[in-house]
Amino acid sequence: MKGEPEHNVAGGCRARTPSALHCAAMFQYRLEDTQGSARAGTLHTPHGEVPTPAFMPVGTQGTVKALAMEEVEALGARMVLANTYHLYLRPGHELVHELGGLHRFMRWDGPLLTDSGGFQVFSLSAIRDVHDDGVDFKSHIDGSTHTFTPERVMDIQRALGADVIMAFDECPPGGCDRVTAEAACDRTLAWLARCRDRFDVLQTEADGPAQALFPVLQGNVYDDLRRSHAERTLGMHDWKGYGIGGLSVGEAKHDMWRTLEILDGVLPADRPRYLMGVGYPDDLLEAVARGCDMFDCVAPTRNARHGTAWTSTEGQVNLKAARFKRDTAALDPMCDCTTCSRYDRAYLRHLVVASEWLAMRLLSIHNLRFLVRLGEEARTRIGNGTFEGWHVEWLERFRKERSNQ
Amino acid sequence: MKGEPEHNVAGGCRARTPSALHCAAMFQYRLEDTQGSARAGTLHTPHGEVPTPAFMPVGTQGTVKALAMEEVEALGARMVLANTYHLYLRPGHELVHELGGLHRFMRWDGPLLTDSGGFQVFSLSAIRDVHDDGVDFKSHIDGSTHTFTPERVMDIQRALGADVIMAFDECPPGGCDRVTAEAACDRTLAWLARCRDRFDVLQTEADGPAQALFPVLQGNVYDDLRRSHAERTLGMHDWKGYGIGGLSVGEAKHDMWRTLEILDGVLPADRPRYLMGVGYPDDLLEAVARGCDMFDCVAPTRNARHGTAWTSTEGQVNLKAARFKRDTAALDPMCDCTTCSRYDRAYLRHLVVASEWLAMRLLSIHNLRFLVRLGEEARTRIGNGTFEGWHVEWLERFRKERSNQ
Repeated sequence: MKGEPEHNVAGGCRARTPSALHCAAMFQYRLEDTQGSARAGTLHTPHGEVPTPAFMPVGTQGTVKALAMEEVEALGARMVLANTYHLYLRPGHELVHELGGLHRFMRWDGPLLTDSGGFQVFSLSAIRDVHDDGVDFKSHIDGSTHTFTPERVMDIQRALGADVIMAFDECPPGGCDRVTAEAACDRTLAWLARCRDRFDVLQTEADGPAQALFPVLQGNVYDDLRRSHAERTLGMHDWKGYGIGGLSVGEAKHDMWRTLEILDGVLPADRPRYLMGVGYPDDLLEAVARGCDMFDCVAPTRNARHGTAWTSTEGQVNLKAARFKRDTAALDPMCDCTTCSRYDRAYLRHLVVASEWLAMRLLSIHNLRFLVRLGEEARTRIGNGTFEGWHVEWLERFRKERSNQ
Repeated sequence: MKGEPEHNVAGGCRARTPSALHCAAMFQYRLEDTQGSARAGTLHTPHGEVPTPAFMPVGTQGTVKALAMEEVEALGARMVLANTYHLYLRPGHELVHELGGLHRFMRWDGPLLTDSGGFQVFSLSAIRDVHDDGVDFKSHIDGSTHTFTPERVMDIQRALGADVIMAFDECPPGGCDRVTAEAACDRTLAWLARCRDRFDVLQTEADGPAQALFPVLQGNVYDDLRRSHAERTLGMHDWKGYGIGGLSVGEAKHDMWRTLEILDGVLPADRPRYLMGVGYPDDLLEAVARGCDMFDCVAPTRNARHGTAWTSTEGQVNLKAARFKRDTAALDPMCDCTTCSRYDRAYLRHLVVASEWLAMRLLSIHNLRFLVRLGEEARTRIGNGTFEGWHVEWLERFRKERSNQ
């Protein structure tokens, strides 16, 4: 710690301190309770603590769709994700940096994570060339040509200034052949070394924020690749946390669960595990049961856009259904969100059917709160030893109701 | 008053009292100050008081687009408008009634006004037949056929249950020929008598809310028609207030101002005058100077959808402009709305350019607050005798800045 006083580490690591490098000690994960493989812990960041399991709302373009950040905070979200690919293209990472960084830009003073942009490059940009140096791609907005390399992605995420940033990885489609999966593992590992080198240099700069770099684990659905890629990644560095990539990309559910079980045996207990792109409520709970701590997904807001909501009592419902026309009950009687406190199903249905802007907002608040609350309840139950029975019952009820729709 | 105690009139006129008819005394307008033709007053309604001049946000389909009603209240709006045509078609006035009325349905406990649907029938529905009994029209949603008569429109607005309801009128296009304008005046007057008769019957029903019926003044841009239609309307009944229709429908601005000056000379001082469908900030202020008290318009939210905002310092601006890219100032440094308090132009521009949902919401809050505040300031200045000089300067500055864009 080179003589930095401890209280600086605890309290003085907001953006732009001169001791950014030393603040790396900030990104500690404290494992507090376990039940089976399920874990409850706390991730410390320069912008606050994140109790886990934690669902992170996605603020793709520097805004969680239709919501103000006060609402995101009010619904209990502790950490938010933003997309490097989108912000790099628009408004540009340099502009965000110039305007004081992403926290300031999007008015979020809590913990913030940016992804590497890799997943979007592989899924959104139509034309691309993947080579050892990086990826050439065309913007989905205007067709302009860009290149992401590991170094460039570190520079961009440095400029954005999130607390946790992700390494640039190659993410082949779910169910790709083994040769492709293996090549992607090797490339991801080579890129990771370059990310780390650039990250280390950037963290020595005097005027930037303290950040933690998480690697992304690949290997598709091939168990030995998953194991070897995780072991090789662990062997490279004592990372502050691990992103689990290449899941929820088209593979079978049982492949996802088996992969998580393998990784649970390999990953260190005292580091957070971030399952990228998951998920739906039942998937989130299945993953918590298999040792995952952090999650993100656009499903809550995307479903809201289609009038779909999750409920404790009826599983997933679509508000367009005629049966809600005269229904003056709360959307979810078990929910404590502002939507369920103030509005009834009949009015929500009207907003959805009339394609009103407010529908998107009210359903997004509820769906996000549903996942955040699921993480909170899982955490409580892991703490008091009631997770195992509860999570099985919860999954059964949620799936049974869904199949009844 | 048939022996009803006065305190019932003042405090007991929320929806569904048995003495609805007697509560008509509630809709008193107290004229408090004047300067020239400009007026400051207070309209009393069963759901609260409305200090005038007052801009009323439009909640077309039972929601002010993109906003929660708490936000509408927080930005200082005291009375809100909803559209009979839209709510009749979707979700249906009977359903709204069954669910407890429009106040409850849309979560707005303050003063509420519904229009007659006439304007929408004439502007939105593609095919129609206007006859002495009413108007046959096709829904703009599904093409289904409907008929509005004066009686039907009273029934619908009774079911919705707003505090102030509007008579069914015929509104010909701005600049129509004199014969058309005169025929519309006659028909509007005949329909008004039928509205009043039905309204009187409905108000004797024991289980409904106390409501006030405002007639709508027509006459297009023909001064003698305007004068005679107003006089004949006044002669029919001692109305609680007057809607000024057939303006802001394509006629020249000087025709609108001259018409308002004529009506200012005819209308009683102790009744509120509601200028329907106005407006833009400068039009609102011009109309206040000519004796109008209440206003509504979709421009604040429609402009927001296009990235346009009104400012005290730069007139009307479009946030898409490149000059806002690095602008960390508040949208309007003179504004006290939550958008101007929390966000800067650079971020608002990003939201607009990226077509983010939040842009619509933040700009709507600002634009609505801009008009509500303009009414508030006009009221203060009428009260302290500084309206005349101020309003001329305000108009000059606002228009100069707009022409500089």
